[in-house]
Amino acid sequence: MNHDAFIVRPGAKISLKKDYDTTFTTDFHDKGDAKIKLEKDIERLAKYQNVLYAQNTYALLIIFQAMDAAGKDSTIKHVMSGINPQGCQVFSFKQPSSEELDHDYLWRSVKALPERGRIGIFNRSYYEEVLIARVHPELLEKQQLPKSVMGNHIWKQRFEEINNFEKYLVNNGIIVIKFFLNVSKEEQKKRFMERIELPEKNWKFSTSDVQERAHWDDYMNAYEDVFRHTSSELAPWYIIPADHKWFTRMVVANIICSKLKELKLNYPTVTEEHYSNILQAKEILEAEV
Amino acid sequence: MNHDAFIVRPGAKISLKKDYDTTFTTDFHDKGDAKIKLEKDIERLAKYQNVLYAQNTYALLIIFQAMDAAGKDSTIKHVMSGINPQGCQVFSFKQPSSEELDHDYLWRSVKALPERGRIGIFNRSYYEEVLIARVHPELLEKQQLPKSVMGNHIWKQRFEEINNFEKYLVNNGIIVIKFFLNVSKEEQKKRFMERIELPEKNWKFSTSDVQERAHWDDYMNAYEDVFRHTSSELAPWYIIPADHKWFTRMVVANIICSKLKELKLNYPTVTEEHYSNILQAKEILEAEV
Repeated sequence: MNHDAFIVRPGAKISLKKDYDTTFTTDFHDKGDAKIKLEKDIERLAKYQNVLYAQNTYALLIIFQAMDAAGKDSTIKHVMSGINPQGCQVFSFKQPSSEELDHDYLWRSVKALPERGRIGIFNRSYYEEVLIARVHPELLEKQQLPKSVMGNHIWKQRFEEINNFEKYLVNNGIIVIKFFLNVSKEEQKKRFMERIELPEKNWKFSTSDVQERAHWDDYMNAYEDVFRHTSSELAPWYIIPADHKWFTRMVVANIICSKLKELKLNYPTVTEEHYSNILQAKEILEAEV
Repeated sequence: MNHDAFIVRPGAKISLKKDYDTTFTTDFHDKGDAKIKLEKDIERLAKYQNVLYAQNTYALLIIFQAMDAAGKDSTIKHVMSGINPQGCQVFSFKQPSSEELDHDYLWRSVKALPERGRIGIFNRSYYEEVLIARVHPELLEKQQLPKSVMGNHIWKQRFEEINNFEKYLVNNGIIVIKFFLNVSKEEQKKRFMERIELPEKNWKFSTSDVQERAHWDDYMNAYEDVFRHTSSELAPWYIIPADHKWFTRMVVANIICSKLKELKLNYPTVTEEHYSNILQAKEILEAEV
């Protein structure tokens, strides 16, 4: 599968509304074929992850950002169930605690980075610091930042800091992929209504979600700016159509597989010294009564 | 499935050699039937875990202890793959770092406890502190303990501390299950030989594993003492026959399911206030143009 339609070229000035159709499904027309492809990719993913774990050189950090009800949780569930939980960890970032606010804004993310050999998933991430913090400036006030940092230049500065951070990660073997699940405002409404009307989904619904819809255009503008300034060759952004969940899942799984394939992962080779130790151990075992 | 054959009664003085057959498979005779049962339980597990996550009241801590090659990694992989990684986390405890040694022995485990709504798996655990530390007293020396703590009474003291810790966890909603995968010395040898003879398994083999076999009886004695003193009504030990991997996996999955069933998990009920907010949100959504 070609991913050109989803990747954001570094520096590209995109319009989510004009350039990205939330209902796009390439040449897939329904759930059926997509599900078969998804299942195959989930199997591939499980295999790659075994080697990733054994080789213990790379980690994969997968970031999910989106508006509410775009399908982050269910994509994580459907794409990542089936892989060994020993090699996979998910962090859901909520409103920062006061301890977290007393640190720099990347601190809590650094603590949650996956160790080598693992896939780490950020359900929301430090990108909220240039999204929700931009749409709701009062949140920034709470961060106790030095005066010199405050002002409109903060976003450009944060983009640069984030780019440097991600470059550092990739340089050191932590590969970064970033997904934006692109849902339409209409589809979000439909999904909210479902959460309202189905009693078993009520718990998942928060009335503040509806209030955030009033800021939809501000969020879209903030996202466009994020993509333009933080999609890099090393750590690209992918904008995934999210009005059809079956399509979202399939594309996400396929992109993750491609990234892991690129790494040309191998089971670790045993050094000569280790091998001669193994032979020695074999002798000891065989000599046991 | 009845679990009486596996659970250790509080205070029971057991003999692993005499009382626990490592090849026992109840009335299952081969992989086939066990696999069907395992698959059903994995599905149940995934469902329970969804409710656990939604209800956000309990966490489940599952501890795996065993001799090398007993199948901890593969049991975790086969039982827990298929559940949503968003609600599951695995920690593999290795040799403690010097920072960890500078803290009390439960410190690193406390940091790794699962949050409410999650299943946390400890691949090895603080029980190493009354197992490997007992078989190799030189490890205890490194812990910089006050002199008054050192001496033979340390094990009894640690059992008491561990019991109190687990009681505290269960009282606060973190349910504890402890599995010992009981492999025979002969079966371990077979599995080591396989790791030696199959080049793709060489990386998993460490020659120090063979050296530890020399302490087999010491380990068995230490385990027997652990079971006797730390299997409680609140946090029981299960001794699972581990010479047949298909049987180990099936029993472990079944015990986890039973424990989750006992909790009588429910999707959170929405309060009247929340519900009236939901209706208000519905009106706002419907009024949108």
